[in-house]
Amino acid sequence: MVKITGVTAMIIQSVSGTESVDKEDFLAVEEPLEIWVEHGQPQARISRTLSITMRTPGADEDLVRGFLLTEGIVRHAMEITDVQLLAENKILARLDPTAEFDMSRLDRHFYTSSSCGVCGKTSIEAVKTTAVGKFHPLTFRALNSEVLYALPDRLRAAQSSFDLTGGLHASALFSLDGTLLALREDVGRHNALDKLIGHSATASGLPLTNTILLLSGRASFELIQKAAMAGIPVVCAVGAPSSLAVTTAKEFGIVLIGFLRGRRFNVYNG
Amino acid sequence: MVKITGVTAMIIQSVSGTESVDKEDFLAVEEPLEIWVEHGQPQARISRTLSITMRTPGADEDLVRGFLLTEGIVRHAMEITDVQLLAENKILARLDPTAEFDMSRLDRHFYTSSSCGVCGKTSIEAVKTTAVGKFHPLTFRALNSEVLYALPDRLRAAQSSFDLTGGLHASALFSLDGTLLALREDVGRHNALDKLIGHSATASGLPLTNTILLLSGRASFELIQKAAMAGIPVVCAVGAPSSLAVTTAKEFGIVLIGFLRGRRFNVYNG
Repeated sequence: MVKITGVTAMIIQSVSGTESVDKEDFLAVEEPLEIWVEHGQPQARISRTLSITMRTPGADEDLVRGFLLTEGIVRHAMEITDVQLLAENKILARLDPTAEFDMSRLDRHFYTSSSCGVCGKTSIEAVKTTAVGKFHPLTFRALNSEVLYALPDRLRAAQSSFDLTGGLHASALFSLDGTLLALREDVGRHNALDKLIGHSATASGLPLTNTILLLSGRASFELIQKAAMAGIPVVCAVGAPSSLAVTTAKEFGIVLIGFLRGRRFNVYNG
Repeated sequence: MVKITGVTAMIIQSVSGTESVDKEDFLAVEEPLEIWVEHGQPQARISRTLSITMRTPGADEDLVRGFLLTEGIVRHAMEITDVQLLAENKILARLDPTAEFDMSRLDRHFYTSSSCGVCGKTSIEAVKTTAVGKFHPLTFRALNSEVLYALPDRLRAAQSSFDLTGGLHASALFSLDGTLLALREDVGRHNALDKLIGHSATASGLPLTNTILLLSGRASFELIQKAAMAGIPVVCAVGAPSSLAVTTAKEFGIVLIGFLRGRRFNVYNG
């Protein structure tokens, strides 16, 4: 049996027409991850639960780093001194005593619901405040369409699990010439992006200037917000963007491309 | 121009090969909805924010009713005396003074993150406690494969917005003979399901005995949890289920079918 992190096998009943056979099938693993954060001065350290997210195990440390950065809970990757797995599905991020730990951002996160980012305008303002100064925008003219057309095939070629389970979202980061820099997968598309950003922040630091983000599915507000927090200037989606995704991309000057399939795409903000 | 709730039009640049034309495109609307709840005795009514969710406007009252029921914040549809739009994107549910309003469930909700349900086992236990006694399970043998094969086409035929935007998830409820009972759409798949359940709870009451739920995308833990809370005995998904979706379906005795496409499907729990 193939062993890949985040994938599990089970025997299922495969029905086709009037026939039915038992066969092995592969599922994307979905498990809760409890994210804890420890912050404060050396003599008065405080630990608290930050969030519980349903994610695919694997790259959990990247996920936590990315989550803290894209939600604005810390401002720099360096403020996270270390990330440690405390138990199965329980992970702790230790923050530097000098980190500006913003409780209001934490509360903001608690107010958000499933597949949410946070509330429209207020949140756009909050992201703008945090992301300001680290974003180097590009225009659509700086991009080569032939490079863009090639990205979805490169993402699929690099995806370790999607073909097996059909159940994972992917986020991939490319350079402007179409070189794959990193790819992460998850049952939650926001988690796939947090894992990618957490990894990239550690590897090369933020902002992710002169990069292209490719999303395997649709583009929601939340994903554009996270891209903005990471300073990613170009976002391409294989699926459709939402109205608020377009509004947010326009606010930040992010190039937003949707329905990137075959030799076609739509430019929603250029 | 076509006017459909939840859809907006914009001029985009459509690129194909080496050509580029400006054309009208349709986007799924994504906007925040602030859900407030008023509860308590007549002389001591309390209002509080319950959640902010990014949703597609339309059927907001159904969404709120479904959300309160599937999150276990109320136990019966009758405990919601009325739902009133207070402002654009701000809605209030008034609960009956006799309603058992469970703050811990509210806290539980605040702990959940994007695309989350809540934490695995604890949550399954919580759902079991709440859903117990109102669920009438079926077995796969009670279903007709020919009826199942026909469902995705019926869903697509009934979808008002998907073909226009490509950006909406759909949840549809069918009777066991394949008759479409109701369909709801949203940028968030959990919202589409909450809208469907909120509508159905008002129309025919819970549990939704002898019904089949069809999901236009993948099946996550959260969606199976919501189906269990509504007493839906059969869940079919056009896409893949996650590992925890299967575990949860087994726990509740929900028939779970995935990859329902053409004349094929997989049975993950029968």
